[in-house]
Amino acid sequence: MRFASRIRPASPSGRSSWDIHSVAEEMMAKGEEVIVLTVGDSDFASPKAAVDAVTDSLARGRTYYTAPAGDDPLRATIARQQSRLIGREIAPEQVIVTVGAQNALLIASLCLLDPGDEVIVPEPLYSTYPGTLGLAGARMVTVASPAAQDFHPQVDAIAAAITPRTRAIFLATPNNPTGAVYRQDELRRIGDICKQHDLWLVSDEVYAGIVYEGHHFSAGSLADIADRTVTIGSLSKSHAMAGWRLGWMVAPLALARQAERVSTWVTFGIPTFIQDAAVVALETQPDGMPELKEAYARRRQLFCDRLMNVPGVVPHWPEGGMFVMLDVSGSGLPAYEFAMGLVREKRVATVPSDDFGASAQGYLRVNLGAADALIEEAAARIADYAFALHEEKATPTPA
Amino acid sequence: MRFASRIRPASPSGRSSWDIHSVAEEMMAKGEEVIVLTVGDSDFASPKAAVDAVTDSLARGRTYYTAPAGDDPLRATIARQQSRLIGREIAPEQVIVTVGAQNALLIASLCLLDPGDEVIVPEPLYSTYPGTLGLAGARMVTVASPAAQDFHPQVDAIAAAITPRTRAIFLATPNNPTGAVYRQDELRRIGDICKQHDLWLVSDEVYAGIVYEGHHFSAGSLADIADRTVTIGSLSKSHAMAGWRLGWMVAPLALARQAERVSTWVTFGIPTFIQDAAVVALETQPDGMPELKEAYARRRQLFCDRLMNVPGVVPHWPEGGMFVMLDVSGSGLPAYEFAMGLVREKRVATVPSDDFGASAQGYLRVNLGAADALIEEAAARIADYAFALHEEKATPTPA
Ligand SMILES: Cc1ncc(COP(=O)(O)O)c(C=O)c1O
Ligand SMILES: Cc1ncc(COP(=O)(O)O)c(C=O)c1O
Repeated sequence: MRFASRIRPASPSGRSSWDIHSVAEEMMAKGEEVIVLTVGDSDFASPKAAVDAVTDSLARGRTYYTAPAGDDPLRATIARQQSRLIGREIAPEQVIVTVGAQNALLIASLCLLDPGDEVIVPEPLYSTYPGTLGLAGARMVTVASPAAQDFHPQVDAIAAAITPRTRAIFLATPNNPTGAVYRQDELRRIGDICKQHDLWLVSDEVYAGIVYEGHHFSAGSLADIADRTVTIGSLSKSHAMAGWRLGWMVAPLALARQAERVSTWVTFGIPTFIQDAAVVALETQPDGMPELKEAYARRRQLFCDRLMNVPGVVPHWPEGGMFVMLDVSGSGLPAYEFAMGLVREKRVATVPSDDFGASAQGYLRVNLGAADALIEEAAARIADYAFALHEEKATPTPA
Repeated sequence: MRFASRIRPASPSGRSSWDIHSVAEEMMAKGEEVIVLTVGDSDFASPKAAVDAVTDSLARGRTYYTAPAGDDPLRATIARQQSRLIGREIAPEQVIVTVGAQNALLIASLCLLDPGDEVIVPEPLYSTYPGTLGLAGARMVTVASPAAQDFHPQVDAIAAAITPRTRAIFLATPNNPTGAVYRQDELRRIGDICKQHDLWLVSDEVYAGIVYEGHHFSAGSLADIADRTVTIGSLSKSHAMAGWRLGWMVAPLALARQAERVSTWVTFGIPTFIQDAAVVALETQPDGMPELKEAYARRRQLFCDRLMNVPGVVPHWPEGGMFVMLDVSGSGLPAYEFAMGLVREKRVATVPSDDFGASAQGYLRVNLGAADALIEEAAARIADYAFALHEEKATPTPA
């Protein structure tokens, strides 16, 4: 039987960055202890106020269908929060509640992109983007943000990548995997390009609440491109609520109206009692969980300090987000082989950055959402592993 | 700013079957009491065991990302239930957990349909189908199931509607809005057509647990088309859990593997604690809530009996599902005007069947998910309204 042509075969190599995660799962199924630093999840528990709100909401019988685009109180809360963040008034009708940011990325893609349209995405990039854009039939065109430029967007290269088929720029700031926090001047110049070439700007800001250096600048702040800007957010990262699947998009009213219709066909809405809990989470901690941000900052330091002077590896200090990128190109092994050896020999699972784009080649992505002691232990094992590779290289095997 | 061309303008008339619901909401906002029999929701509370399971699951910290296609225990539970229903072994890997049946319809559409493909749908039909198929760029081709044939599918007409572009048949049994429960011989013949013309069969069986006459026959039972059949289910109707947004699709393994990838891009998974509760709901009440089915059967009787001998209206006894179709064509008013007058004058909100297809013209759809007393009161008000229209017709206005 035939599938739709938008369903492309999985990676032709049959190899995926997630193979290391799968190996870790197999090892754990056999009872081995593995430090898993792959998926972008947190070790923090979700806020107690949100958990309690679910029980309350269920007790009030909030188990019926609700508006597909989201309940009014939640849309109002998100609008208020976004208005405060960007210093410009956002109306509740501009907010569409979604199944996490992922679902907002899909709805934006379906609303904006025709088959054959091109979307420019700075890489390294979040690895669901190609698939998501592909569901709308769009073609992803990546533009390098090289490590030498601290993984920041190269605005001239973005401009140069535009063709008559370009319809949108999708970006993530703070970035996954690199942690780059795009600066105001960078976003402003990208906004100018959008205006000049009549493009949509979709800004994925799920890590807005987790910034270590400088501060988060939202694309939504750019008033002169407000009619072409979509801002995406989520409780997954800032509130340690990844498993709740609660996100949103903020869009110009005309687009929000279309997204509302599309949400009817995509999900027919989000669980009522989760929306009630989301209101509580956002009202009690509008900037995310401070203890989570502090913990990640501490772990970033622990991890990077430990690996600063280890041969063959170089940690890249993230400006935000929940990951550290570790350059392992000096080890002599490609990232995939390094990561596979590391999980097999040292029981530390990471994501080799193969799927994140050309600028991420030779890097591992390391999640900071694990207890300090595990992060330290993981860094120590990585150091051991890197030292062993270094020794091997230095000592030629006898013939 | 331009949207994707799949985003077609809303109904050109600017008129929608849901206008009556909107009027009811405005009236209620002004403090008026309205009996709302529009949305396909239930007056029943969700099962207590499921509600308690959420609190338990949250207490166990089940708030993290999980597999996008669904947790293993839930997939296993649904597979077991489906195997029992169809008398054939379904593997857990064939099950994809979704945000309600609506999301399963979308994922199936995205997996199977290319832009320009045609999908045959017997009408009357569930009103999200055109939008959902449209997101995949497919064209819906409706085939009438006339009231004179009790709204049952006309298999020869379906066969006659096939063109070289036909890729699939989408149907719902028990049907929304008509309540027709498709018979084994009808589904078998539709299956034969699918085999002969190399089509997919997508069978939406969200009302499987609510059948009054005969019994539900699942398209999944047709072993010879198992490689081309998708069965869709949900807790929304059978378990009074519409607001939980928990559904599923059961598909041949090759398709399920693709749907699993697509679910990564559409939602990245369903809330963990809702999946835990779904296991409990399905294990404790595998055939849905018996008291719910009994109540709907009782209300069907109350409603239809009351309107049997009222001039200008004829109730159609549903075989299953949660709606009664009421033929108001004898009243002299089109269904939309009848429904609008009814809500304004008698404060009973129903859905005129304009959006459900040509065979439903002249009908109102009435939801049985309201307390017996409300159903009786609504029937009485409809009778009053119909009598008044009848009198008006009989008494020519003086010149
Ligand atoms: C950049 C980026 N966007 C979107 C998402 C999806 O987040 P959510 O859990 O809100 O769907 C992630 C998750 O890792 C992410 O890193
Ligand atoms: C025939 C049919 N399919 C699908 C759905 C969507 O159900 P769910 O709540 O599971 O998304 C409905 C809801 O009314 C329906 O009537």
